[in-house]
Order: sequence, then C-alpha cells, then structure tokens
Amino acid sequence: MANMMKAAVVRAFGKPLTIEEVPVPVPGPGEVLVKVVACGVCHTDLHAADGDWPVKPSPPFIPGHEAAGHVVALGPGVTGLKEGDAVGVAWLHDACRACEYCETGWETLCEHQHNTGYSCDGGFAEYVIAAAPFVTRLPPKGDFAQLAPILCAGVTTYKGLKETEARPGEWVAISGVGGLGHIAIQYAKAMGFHVAALDVSPDKLERARATGADLAVDARSPDAVAEIVKATGGGAHGVLVTAVSPPAFSQALSYVRRKGTVSLVGLPPGEFATPIFDVVLKRITVRGSIVGTRRDLDESVAFAVEGKVKAEIHKAPLEKINDIFADLKDGRIDGRMVLDFT
Amino acid sequence: MANMMKAAVVRAFGKPLTIEEVPVPVPGPGEVLVKVVACGVCHTDLHAADGDWPVKPSPPFIPGHEAAGHVVALGPGVTGLKEGDAVGVAWLHDACRACEYCETGWETLCEHQHNTGYSCDGGFAEYVIAAAPFVTRLPPKGDFAQLAPILCAGVTTYKGLKETEARPGEWVAISGVGGLGHIAIQYAKAMGFHVAALDVSPDKLERARATGADLAVDARSPDAVAEIVKATGGGAHGVLVTAVSPPAFSQALSYVRRKGTVSLVGLPPGEFATPIFDVVLKRITVRGSIVGTRRDLDESVAFAVEGKVKAEIHKAPLEKINDIFADLKDGRIDGRMVLDFT
Amino acid sequence: MANMMKAAVVRAFGKPLTIEEVPVPVPGPGEVLVKVVACGVCHTDLHAADGDWPVKPSPPFIPGHEAAGHVVALGPGVTGLKEGDAVGVAWLHDACRACEYCETGWETLCEHQHNTGYSCDGGFAEYVIAAAPFVTRLPPKGDFAQLAPILCAGVTTYKGLKETEARPGEWVAISGVGGLGHIAIQYAKAMGFHVAALDVSPDKLERARATGADLAVDARSPDAVAEIVKATGGGAHGVLVTAVSPPAFSQALSYVRRKGTVSLVGLPPGEFATPIFDVVLKRITVRGSIVGTRRDLDESVAFAVEGKVKAEIHKAPLEKINDIFADLKDGRIDGRMVLDFT
Amino acid sequence: MANMMKAAVVRAFGKPLTIEEVPVPVPGPGEVLVKVVACGVCHTDLHAADGDWPVKPSPPFIPGHEAAGHVVALGPGVTGLKEGDAVGVAWLHDACRACEYCETGWETLCEHQHNTGYSCDGGFAEYVIAAAPFVTRLPPKGDFAQLAPILCAGVTTYKGLKETEARPGEWVAISGVGGLGHIAIQYAKAMGFHVAALDVSPDKLERARATGADLAVDARSPDAVAEIVKATGGGAHGVLVTAVSPPAFSQALSYVRRKGTVSLVGLPPGEFATPIFDVVLKRITVRGSIVGTRRDLDESVAFAVEGKVKAEIHKAPLEKINDIFADLKDGRIDGRMVLDFT
Repeated sequence: MANMMKAAVVRAFGKPLTIEEVPVPVPGPGEVLVKVVACGVCHTDLHAADGDWPVKPSPPFIPGHEAAGHVVALGPGVTGLKEGDAVGVAWLHDACRACEYCETGWETLCEHQHNTGYSCDGGFAEYVIAAAPFVTRLPPKGDFAQLAPILCAGVTTYKGLKETEARPGEWVAISGVGGLGHIAIQYAKAMGFHVAALDVSPDKLERARATGADLAVDARSPDAVAEIVKATGGGAHGVLVTAVSPPAFSQALSYVRRKGTVSLVGLPPGEFATPIFDVVLKRITVRGSIVGTRRDLDESVAFAVEGKVKAEIHKAPLEKINDIFADLKDGRIDGRMVLDFT
Repeated sequence: MANMMKAAVVRAFGKPLTIEEVPVPVPGPGEVLVKVVACGVCHTDLHAADGDWPVKPSPPFIPGHEAAGHVVALGPGVTGLKEGDAVGVAWLHDACRACEYCETGWETLCEHQHNTGYSCDGGFAEYVIAAAPFVTRLPPKGDFAQLAPILCAGVTTYKGLKETEARPGEWVAISGVGGLGHIAIQYAKAMGFHVAALDVSPDKLERARATGADLAVDARSPDAVAEIVKATGGGAHGVLVTAVSPPAFSQALSYVRRKGTVSLVGLPPGEFATPIFDVVLKRITVRGSIVGTRRDLDESVAFAVEGKVKAEIHKAPLEKINDIFADLKDGRIDGRMVLDFT
Repeated sequence: MANMMKAAVVRAFGKPLTIEEVPVPVPGPGEVLVKVVACGVCHTDLHAADGDWPVKPSPPFIPGHEAAGHVVALGPGVTGLKEGDAVGVAWLHDACRACEYCETGWETLCEHQHNTGYSCDGGFAEYVIAAAPFVTRLPPKGDFAQLAPILCAGVTTYKGLKETEARPGEWVAISGVGGLGHIAIQYAKAMGFHVAALDVSPDKLERARATGADLAVDARSPDAVAEIVKATGGGAHGVLVTAVSPPAFSQALSYVRRKGTVSLVGLPPGEFATPIFDVVLKRITVRGSIVGTRRDLDESVAFAVEGKVKAEIHKAPLEKINDIFADLKDGRIDGRMVLDFT
Repeated sequence: MANMMKAAVVRAFGKPLTIEEVPVPVPGPGEVLVKVVACGVCHTDLHAADGDWPVKPSPPFIPGHEAAGHVVALGPGVTGLKEGDAVGVAWLHDACRACEYCETGWETLCEHQHNTGYSCDGGFAEYVIAAAPFVTRLPPKGDFAQLAPILCAGVTTYKGLKETEARPGEWVAISGVGGLGHIAIQYAKAMGFHVAALDVSPDKLERARATGADLAVDARSPDAVAEIVKATGGGAHGVLVTAVSPPAFSQALSYVRRKGTVSLVGLPPGEFATPIFDVVLKRITVRGSIVGTRRDLDESVAFAVEGKVKAEIHKAPLEKINDIFADLKDGRIDGRMVLDFT
C-alpha cells in the first residue's frame, strides 16, 4: 500500500480546495482503512468547505461523506470486517453507543457523534478512515459510483419518507426534484406510495415523470396547490421538502392533507414561518429528519442494490472538485456528481 | 317545559352580548334538547363573539361549548339516550360520520363538522340542542360545574398531551399555567409523566407546584431553558404549549429533547418562526392538536370523574357574561369561569 | 322495478340451498336497495349455510357478502348516495356507530354489528339491502365481477398484511395460495414487500410465482423453514396465515423473524398450540384479524381499481351455487367463484 | 483486593450448589469487575441450575443476574465507567452491537448475546464480571438490596406492561401476584393504568390490594372473568401473564378486551392452546416479551429510585442459596429473596 495519497483539502473556509499529496492515515483501535472507489458530492460538503453552519469543522480537513470502496487495513480490535470487504462510509463517522439515542437505534441524534468529512477527514481522497461499527456493507460486485449517492442522498430521502408515516397506497408529495428529489421519487414508488412531485423547472418536472411520479406540478403555478389537493383527493398524506426554502415549506402546509406530516430534510440557514391556525385546525405534523441510522442506511442500500432506486450520476475526477462546487452553487447540476477514483 | 328561555346572544361582532328571552329550540331528527346546569367560558367564545377567525359565525347566535346538563327531550329517531340522562355538550356539535376522518376516529378533522356555540347555538342559555351521537355521558350525580371545563379545556389539554407521544416516566413541559395549563398539569401527572411548568407569573408558578408540577420555572428567567434541560436530563420529551405566543413557542424548541414533540393547542392568529437547523438536527416534531374526539372526551371525563383532575372554577350567573369576557381579555381570570344555571 | 327476485336461500343448515322467487326487500330508514351485478362466493358462506359457528344465522336466510351492484332505491333519510351509484356490499352490514370501537375506526369489533348474508340477507340474490353508511363506493364503470372478491377476500388479506406491521422493503410470508393467498401476494407486492409464498401444491406454487412472489416454497419440504429463513436473511418480518391449519400456524412460528408478527385471518374451528419458549424469547406477536373497516375496504378497492390487484375469478350463474359449494368443500376451486347476475 | 472470593457454584445440573472459594476473575477488554453488594434470586437461576431449557449452560458456573454493586476494576479500553461507580449487572451480559436488533435498540433479541449467570458467571459471588456497555447505573447511595430485583423482575414486568401498548387511564390485568406480579402492579399504577390483579391465594390478593390494585380477583372463582369484564367495562386493554400456566393464559384470552394485548413474560416449558375464533374475531394480540433492553432497564430503575416501585424483599446470606431454591420450587417465597453480601 502507498504511504501517500491524493486528497482534496479545505485549507480555509470559502477558498478553493487544494489537491494535495497527504499521508495515508493509519486506522486506530476499532477503525478500518478504506480505499475509495467513488465518493459522491453533497451540498453539505459545500457548507463544510464554506464554514456555513454554527458548529464548524477545523481546517485543514478533507470533505466527503458518500464514499464507497474496499477495506484495505484493519486497526486493532476490529471484528466483523476483513480486508477486501466492500463498504460505504457515510456521514455518521461514529457515535457514543451508550447514550439514550444510541441505545434505542437513533444514533443520528447522539450528541457525541463525529461526522465524516466534517469533524474527521472524509472521502475526497484515495483513502478514508472509518469506524468499523458504522460502515455499511455493499455488495462485492456493486456499482460503487451508483451506490455512493445512496450513502447520503439516498438514505436521507428514504428516512425522510419513512418519517412522514405515510402508508402504501397513500400519496406523498416531493417538493424539489434535484439531487435529493429524483432519488426520493424512486424510493417513494418502491415503498408503494403515489407520488406528486413539485419543481419550478419544466426539465425537472419531465424528469420527475420519467422517474415514476404519478403527478408533476409546476410549483409556481397559481393552481399548484389546487391541482395536488384534487389529484390526491384532499391533499398529500406525507410531504418531503427536499429544499427547505421558505416558500416551498409554506406551500407544503397548503397541500398536505389534514392529519398529514411534512418532513424536512434540508439544512438551509434561517427560519420558516409556520401558520398556527392551519397547523392546529388540520392537526398537521412538521418534523425534521437528519440522514438516517445504520439500519436505515442498510435498508436504503438494499433498495438500490435491487435496482429499485438509481441515482442519476455524472462522474468526474477528484481534480474537478472546485468546478463541481461552483456548478453546485449555481444549480447547474442534474442528479448527483460522483468523484471517480478508478 | 317552558317555551322561552334565557340566553346570552351575540347580535354583532365585538359588541356586548345581550341577555334575552328566546324560544326554547325543538330537537330535530337525531337531536336532543339539553337543559343546561353549567357552562364553562372559553377563549374561543370570545373569539366567536368578536368574529376573530377567518371563518366566522353568523349573528345572532349563542356561544358556549362546555355545557353540562340533562336530556329533557328527544328528537325523532334518537336511540341510546333517554330523558334525564346526564350529558356534556362540547365543541364538536356533529360531523359527517362518512369521511375518512370520521371513519377512522378523527372526527375533529371532518370538513363538514358543525361547532357548538359557533355554527350552531351553544350553551350560554338555559337549553341547548345537541346531536345525539356526539354528546358525552356524565355521571348522573356528577358535579356539573366541575365537569363543564373538562368538555373543552380538559379534553384539549389531555389530547394535546397524548399527541406528544410521551410515555409514563418521561418529562413533559407545560408552557402556560392558565385555564388550560393548570388542568394540563393534572392530566400529565395522572398519565405518569414528570412535569415541568413554565409561566411568567410567580402566582401561577406557585399554583403549578400546588397542582403537582415537579418543577416550575419562570419563563422569563435567562436560565429557564438551562434549568429545564438540566432537570429533565436533556430536555422535555414532550411539550404542550397552551398559549401559542411566538416567544413561548420559540422557547419550547429550545428545551424540547432531541426526538421530542412540541404540541400546540391554542389558536392565536398569525405565524411562528421555526428554526430549521434545530428542527432537523434534533429531529423535532411540531404538531397541532384541536380539541379531542368523542373517545378522547370520554377518557378525559373519566379522569375528572375519578378525581384525578379538578379544574379551578369560579361560578357566575349568565348575566355576568360581559364582565367575564372583559376579565378574560385582560387576563384577570384564574382557572376557569363557569356559568351556573341552577 | 320487479316485485319478486331470484335468490339462493338456506332453508336448513347442511342442506342444499333452494333457488326461489322471493319478494324484493324494501329499504328501511338509512338503508338502500342494491341491484346485484356480481357476488363472490366465500368459505364463510359455506360456514353460514352449514351452521358451523357458535353464533348461528337463522334460516331461512340468503348468504353472500361480496356483492357489487347499483343503488336502485333509497330508504328514508339516506344522504350521500343516490340511485345509480355503484357500490359494494360487504360482510359488515352495519355497526352501532356509538361504541368505543365504532368511535375509533374499529367498527369490525363492534359487538352490535350485523353481518351481510349471515344475520341479515345477503347477495346471493338479485337485490340486497345495505346500510347506507356502510356501503363502499365502486367506480361507475368498474368490472364488478372482478371487484366482488375484493369486498371480502381482498380487504381481509389487505388488512391482515397491514396488521403484520411490516414495512416496505421487508419480507412477508403468505401461507396458503388459495382464494385468499393469491390476492394477498398481489397486495403484498403493491405494498412494497418482498414475498415468500408457501403451499403444498406445485400448481399453486407456480401460480404464486406468476402472481409476483419472490420465493415460492413447498410447505411440506423438510427444508421449507430453512429455505425461508435463508432467503429472508433471518425470517419473515410478517406472516399472513390465510389457512389457519394447526400445522401451517406452527410452521409460521418457525420462520417468522425475531420481533415479527404472525397475522391470522381464517376462522377454522378449534385451537392451535403455541410454543411459549419461542414466542417469548423471540418476542413474536400473534394477532388475529377480521375482515377490514370501511376505511380498509376503500383502500383495498383502490388498489384493485388501479389494477395492482386482480383476483382470478370464474363466473357462474346463481343456479350453480350448490355445485360451487361442493367444489369449495373439496378444494377444487382455483381463485374465486363469482355469481354473475348480468 | 482479594484474590479469592466466595461463590455458589453449579457443579452438576439438579444437584445442590456448592459454596466455594474461587479466584476473583480478571476483567478483559471492555469489561469491569463489580463487587457485589446484593443479588436477587430468580426462577431463571433455578432453571439454569437444573438445566431445564433447550440451550443449557456448562457447569461449573455461577448463577445470578440481579447483581447490584460497585465497579472495583476496569479492563483495558473501558470508557465511561470508573472505580467506585454503582452499577447493576443484569441478564444481558452483552450483545453483538452490530446486528439488526442491536442497531435498533432491541439487543435483547440479539442472537449472539451472552447471559449473566448462564453462559457466563453471575452474581451469586462476591465479584462478577460485567461488559461495560451493558451495566446499568445505580444511584451512589441507593439501597442495593431493594434495587437488585428491579434488574430482572422489575424490568421484565415493566417491559411486559409497555408491550401491552395500553395507555394511561386504561385497564391492565396482572395474572399472578408473586415475585413478578407484586412489582408489576406497582409499575402499572405508576404508569397511570387501572389495575386488576388475579391470583388463587387470598393472601396474595390481599397483597395486591395493598400494593395498589384497583381490583383483586380470585382466579379460580367461576365469576372471575365476568367480574373483570364488568369492572373494566368490557375487558382489560392489556394483560400481563406473569406465570404462563396454560390455564392462566386461557383465562387471559377470556377477559382481555377486544383489540387488547396479552403479554407473556414467563418461560415455562411447553405450549399453550390458543382459541382461533376468539383471537381472530376480537382481534386479540398475543405477544412474548423477554427481560428488557438497556433503555428499559434504565427506565425501570428510575421508577424504583423515585420510590414508585418497591419490591418486597427478604435478605439471606449466600450460604442459604440451596434452601432458597427449595423454597422457590415449593412456592413458599413471598416477594423476592436477595443474597446479601454486606
């Protein structure tokens, strides 16, 4: 194994990442070293590199939390994994395994968690360190570039859909048909839902239909709400707002069914205005959802491995990361960009 | 039976109610006539009389939806009730019994419901008409003045607590110790919760403690949030915001536990600002709750009949209704006013 | 409208039904008269005609509780239905609408319910009386013969699957691929489950595969349990036992996953032996399920109307009812027999 | 610290335990050594010593899985615990922390678990080894003899009650008022339930009443079922069968309410006969429950620490273990025996 590896490093917030040769990290107790085959690029990586959020990472660091690859070295005390295993390394690097959340299968809420590509180095590199109990199994001969986006975009939308508590046969609406939304539509169909998709771009609405949406609605149309309410027979039982823009959120409260749930999975800064009267009189539930647990991750991967969910991906080499970030900022990316290390 | 009865009538929004002699109504098919013994006075009656809400009642009308009394006449086709039965007449006058909400035990969400004291005449009168399938049974020898506030204030807080999905042994916080809050504390204790109460008045905090709260916190103290988070070991599992003032709601999002639920039961006009970051990262659920179903009502009455919940009431004759409304507006009422017809 | 109609009447338990001309019934208050287009034949009809169960119907009576047709007359006070409406008349003729079960959307558990073709006359006739609030809407141009079996076989299996609490992506096993089982497989697939089917007949296993089962297992094979446990990665999350034969039930407890649920929907006489050790150590849930509520019925019909579920039917005229019963007893019927009144 | 300790050792199934001096064990990686202050005696210890169950322990071994004491030594790599910490050591010695059950907070179902006093040495000794992530925190100044029975009898009944899914204000019936039942009654009251207790001994019924049961019924009375059905207004919403004797189980199916749940927590050998007709028509749920998870354990201890649940205990020295086993076999023990090491 090489001693040095290529990585995209954040040296300062808001600056271009630098492509560097850095030492290959050595797995500590309970850790494994993973040789990255593919790593998806997520909006969160952009927020990390720009230092957008209240709790910030500490440069220099390597972003990336949708890494798929193979275990190539084991740290002391690792059981259950061996060299050559195909694994995914996702946002939840590790968690304490002892708090009330870890003990009840909600480790995504652990206050002691570490996050890949944020509080520890991530997958924009040829190798990445993972905590053994938190990697996800991938099929040995899986299409790693295809599976990479499942590790964050996939599980996030899958979990967000579960959190709506909609049941097969009911309607879910998916607001936003971008990197998250086009995957969400496929999960929703595989879960037995009827799907209404909303976006402001005709291209994306076309894509929503192609991906399986039963209904695709221009969110800016004055009839958008009425159209959904009519087609769903009273409103969507669940709504997944993939882009929590204030207008998208407000609109969701208008077309969600009485007793329905609006699930939020994005992390834009700021607040949204919630109309008390509607929320109370219609018994609406508004719920945040953050990535997914290990179990959710396994389930979301299983759907993809079966071919029921397929991200639209575009491959690029690591060196293109700054261009990709620029495109992401400008909304010029369809589907999901994946860094290809093969 | 008399042909005429005394009633407090709204002749015009925002004007004093007039005490009038009006004809005793005649129960139609499926209806019963109830002789009122006691009727609680609720903020909603004030909103009705002032025409505060988007959908307004049509003057002249008689407010009042916490009426306890006896059946004195049956309309055609009524089964299951007989003259002399002790009953409560609550906010939900009737519902369609055929929509998806009525069919699944969520008739409070029926779009075809009528509401007592709002879209049909209510209990600020010696007699009131009720729809037979929607009355609640009261014990024959019950203390009707005590039970009247249960019919709205009681069931609303009880249902709101259920909607937090907190479990016995967990913590609920109750924001506001007024007419709703002091009853909510008692339900919460009877349901096996630990209770933290918040208010801005020392008197009400004292009352919260006397009513059973394990912790009573001055909501304006800069340490309020920290105090609750510490005492509860991480935040309240459920929060019931009885006065949905924007600051009370924002504060609730700060002391609710990760994965906890904030339940809203008030109906002030306007919107509240919801911080996306906290709601998503902590997987917080925000949920509106409106009165309670017939089943909830029966359950809430059962707690009161057993003596586990006791509203603090002050009796007054019907003629005092305008004074009571004035006191209610000015926040001068402790507990709950009940019109006494005996 | 005619005054007389043709009907298949049970005159004495265990005797052949007689095809008779009887008066067309007149709908009472809240009732409608439905002209039957098609009526499915269910094992329950056989049990009714033979007086098999502890609480027996009173001959003479007309069996049949899978009737699809059109409203042709309204009794007094009926709202929400009009002549010409396409409706289904199912097992639950009516319920009290006032007990705790009716009030919470579990009217199938009402102790005061009446049952079509059992405690009141059913659909083995040209006309049948239905209680207006309990009919199910069918599409005006629906294929009534196709939809008839949904009204009992469909909703029963759909509800039984819901009661397993399995989630999309998980495995359900369906034990028995007969009149109920072949429909259950289709619901299970439409609900997003993986499906393992068990039967003892090679023909039925072939049919299970053709209907969408991911796995079809010979229940008599010594490897049956091991095969399911292996394919499902530890056992089925939910099991629907459509024929509650004691061996089928015992076997289900062997291949259900830890924390899984075995749902029972048949009504054979007798008891089954439940092994305490397994049920406790594996935290197995065993749950009975009886037909479905009005809401379940609407949902189950919606799946069929969309074409996601299609019963295998064979049509026959009313006069063949005794032959059909004989075939049913001898297990010679594939799919579902439907009496055709067109 | 001493090198040798006193322990009660099973040398051969069905033979008296021998009180021996054995080496104090040394904690391995991730383990702690706990000095035992008190250890409860459970029926399971008897089953272990007699080799009653299909999967047997391997003599020689030390039983005991209700051990309360202090950490006195840490193995390598232990975090989160320090010498002097007060802890409980319960049935679940450890679990794999990687399977679907461990990942979702159901580690009690882990197929790779080890059990204290069964597959590894337990608390009938002055010292016991525990897996650090699986100990329960006790209050530093807690009454360890009082808390010991909570570690199995307490958590088992608490979890069993949760598994009935009954809600505060509803009725639970507790069948058997022995070592488990008298604790179950107290949990049930603290959880806000109404409680009906059944037993065959007048003394135990008296004790049930003293412990808080709202109703205590002689299980052998011909009116037992009718009495419970009447008092509960239709049957108990949940039933906890603490002694899964076949007659107690059958009886439970007679007084459980429609839609209710019967929860089983005992582990007698054999099967029970389940009547299909009742289970299906009344939509009864039968569910096994085995001890409780770490989270359940923490919650059950919290109730006891608050004084809401108090086991009736009798202390004895380790040397009396064979006498205690004899009394346990003969049903001569009221409440719970606790070995006292102080």
